[in-house]
Amino acid sequence: MSPSETVNAFIAAIEAKDVETAVSFASENISYENMPTDPIIGLSGLTKTLNSFLGPATTVEWRILEQWEVGPTVVNERLDRFQIGTGWLELPVAGVFKVDQNGKIALWRDYFDMATYTRQLAALTGK
Amino acid sequence: MSPSETVNAFIAAIEAKDVETAVSFASENISYENMPTDPIIGLSGLTKTLNSFLGPATTVEWRILEQWEVGPTVVNERLDRFQIGTGWLELPVAGVFKVDQNGKIALWRDYFDMATYTRQLAALTGK
Repeated sequence: MSPSETVNAFIAAIEAKDVETAVSFASENISYENMPTDPIIGLSGLTKTLNSFLGPATTVEWRILEQWEVGPTVVNERLDRFQIGTGWLELPVAGVFKVDQNGKIALWRDYFDMATYTRQLAALTGK
Repeated sequence: MSPSETVNAFIAAIEAKDVETAVSFASENISYENMPTDPIIGLSGLTKTLNSFLGPATTVEWRILEQWEVGPTVVNERLDRFQIGTGWLELPVAGVFKVDQNGKIALWRDYFDMATYTRQLAALTGK
């Protein structure tokens, strides 16, 4: 698989809410960096964070608007969508992925506005 | 100039707080999109927004951590730094630039966490 294909398969597993399959595409030493918060290192942290993101959503759709691959690096612009209750939470994201020599995602760095996420989550969940 | 060279020159002008030169690299129809806020179309809006970002800073340093060029598109990860008073405001950003056939920046889209910016600005300016 090319780096782009790995990222595509990773995101497809996330959309299927299949965290176990998603995590299988990640390196055991993955650095998962949501830029507004501290980096998360390793598969257990990745699993926990994906579950917390995906848990409230009945449907998950991460639209890849554009994606570039340069060597081992994949960069994309996405609209990450989560159906929660009767509404959709929509989060614009720029993601940077580095795929290592074993074909595993070793770095995943997402740039987004946290308040855009929390404001919609609060409106949809009443919390 | 290649698309990357255009973006580099644009950012160098911003670092020099030379808004007039920076704007000369932009298309008159530029769409300037700070993702947490509404898009800004055209040169007068770009000029005004750059002045408001750069105004409070005595020194501006936008570190390009990594940059990719694919066709007319340039994508970078940056640490945008602003010296304000005795401290530095530091903002992680992922930027997407599209350079048109006239060599002008027609799209500039920055992904970042607004609270990371406003929290530091408030601490440094006391506002």
